[in-house]
Amino acid sequence: MQFTSEQHLDDGVLEREFTLGEIPGILWTPASTSAPSPLILLGHPPLGLRKMYPRLVARARHCAAEGFATATIELPGSGDRPRWTAVDQARADLRRAMEAGEPVSDEIVDALVLPLVDKAVPEWQAALDALLSLPEIGGPVGYSGGVISIGVRLAVVEPRIVAAVLFAGSFVPRATFEEARRATVPLHVLLQWDDEGNDRQPALDLFDAFGSQEKTLEANMGGHTGVPQFAGDAAARFFTRHLRDRPAWRG
Amino acid sequence: MQFTSEQHLDDGVLEREFTLGEIPGILWTPASTSAPSPLILLGHPPLGLRKMYPRLVARARHCAAEGFATATIELPGSGDRPRWTAVDQARADLRRAMEAGEPVSDEIVDALVLPLVDKAVPEWQAALDALLSLPEIGGPVGYSGGVISIGVRLAVVEPRIVAAVLFAGSFVPRATFEEARRATVPLHVLLQWDDEGNDRQPALDLFDAFGSQEKTLEANMGGHTGVPQFAGDAAARFFTRHLRDRPAWRG
Repeated sequence: MQFTSEQHLDDGVLEREFTLGEIPGILWTPASTSAPSPLILLGHPPLGLRKMYPRLVARARHCAAEGFATATIELPGSGDRPRWTAVDQARADLRRAMEAGEPVSDEIVDALVLPLVDKAVPEWQAALDALLSLPEIGGPVGYSGGVISIGVRLAVVEPRIVAAVLFAGSFVPRATFEEARRATVPLHVLLQWDDEGNDRQPALDLFDAFGSQEKTLEANMGGHTGVPQFAGDAAARFFTRHLRDRPAWRG
Repeated sequence: MQFTSEQHLDDGVLEREFTLGEIPGILWTPASTSAPSPLILLGHPPLGLRKMYPRLVARARHCAAEGFATATIELPGSGDRPRWTAVDQARADLRRAMEAGEPVSDEIVDALVLPLVDKAVPEWQAALDALLSLPEIGGPVGYSGGVISIGVRLAVVEPRIVAAVLFAGSFVPRATFEEARRATVPLHVLLQWDDEGNDRQPALDLFDAFGSQEKTLEANMGGHTGVPQFAGDAAARFFTRHLRDRPAWRG
């Protein structure tokens, strides 16, 4: 892990860009901490870190105010990373089906999402190894955000992740529903009730499928990017309950 | 309104029983206040105040800690109030249908709920008149709890109620869905995902029907009486946002 730039934001949060092999990423740490900070991995849709930066940095600042470090990495095939022909092809197929008003087949959804999950999850795990080796980062670790299939896989396979905030989305492969049944960590699922790009029913079905004993669904009005401030606050309190109010792994 | 008893609970909350004509009720006011308190009306299922008391007083203490006065009244036909043959008959019809494994007809639901709503809502409004005439009670006013059809009617017809926390329930008359479309106040709807006594789908349909621009659905695991502590906290924050962080009507 190589840091490539560093700056203090106006609220004192330290923002550092890094590369992990070929993968770019960003780490934010709180202005002042007396002990290693718990860490929240910030997931995001595959639109490229540059495009997602304004929303990511807002979430990072919010988390830093609660004492959490946050980090994110570029998804395979997005942003400055090499194009990925197979996923580009699946995206084109998806667009064609939607423009033609046809139902989006399971095959298109699988081709769009599953290779991304298979490739991205080990990358997030490698980033976790590197981040947890920094003295300023402790545990426990949470995952927050999309792609929901990546969040579900990480919640199931990565034992260092002890709680997750997931953003409901459409285009959920059947395999994700199966994995969801194996989830055991506490989950807080945000659903935008009138999200123009997402179907509500698969989101409700996926929530129902999660095996976790503690799971909360919070649905609010508005579209995909219109999550209200108070819903962000509720997600922060979920992390406070599960990451900060339990003993750190170190420090 | 006649106060019939008064006691200080161990946390200093003042609990006063009262009668309003033939209707018994309870008022709880915070231990110390510098100004008239906002008021939350505590709704409850028609099981009688005595039976509901442990849950009501717990909610009242929680609200008092946030600076809210709370009050509740006995529902018609419940507790120490005279039996109400028509509603008893509808309850018997409901029990018979459920024990026979038959679907509960719209007619049974209407007969069970609509007369209760028609009679109870003006009583809650009369209680509101009396409570708001006390110097220690100011506005604004919220409604919290079941019967959901009573909460919906009050939220729609009573302009002094500016926000409501509703507990999802089954046996929702078609008329309540129609009224829900006319709701405009902010709503926070609690749904117990695995409630053994309630159907999930009508609760989701009713949430969808509400006309309010701000409405949140919070679903958690567990049965009817298993609302987790953190969900109670979230409902309290909803009231803080809508009742306390706006100017009082008086004082």
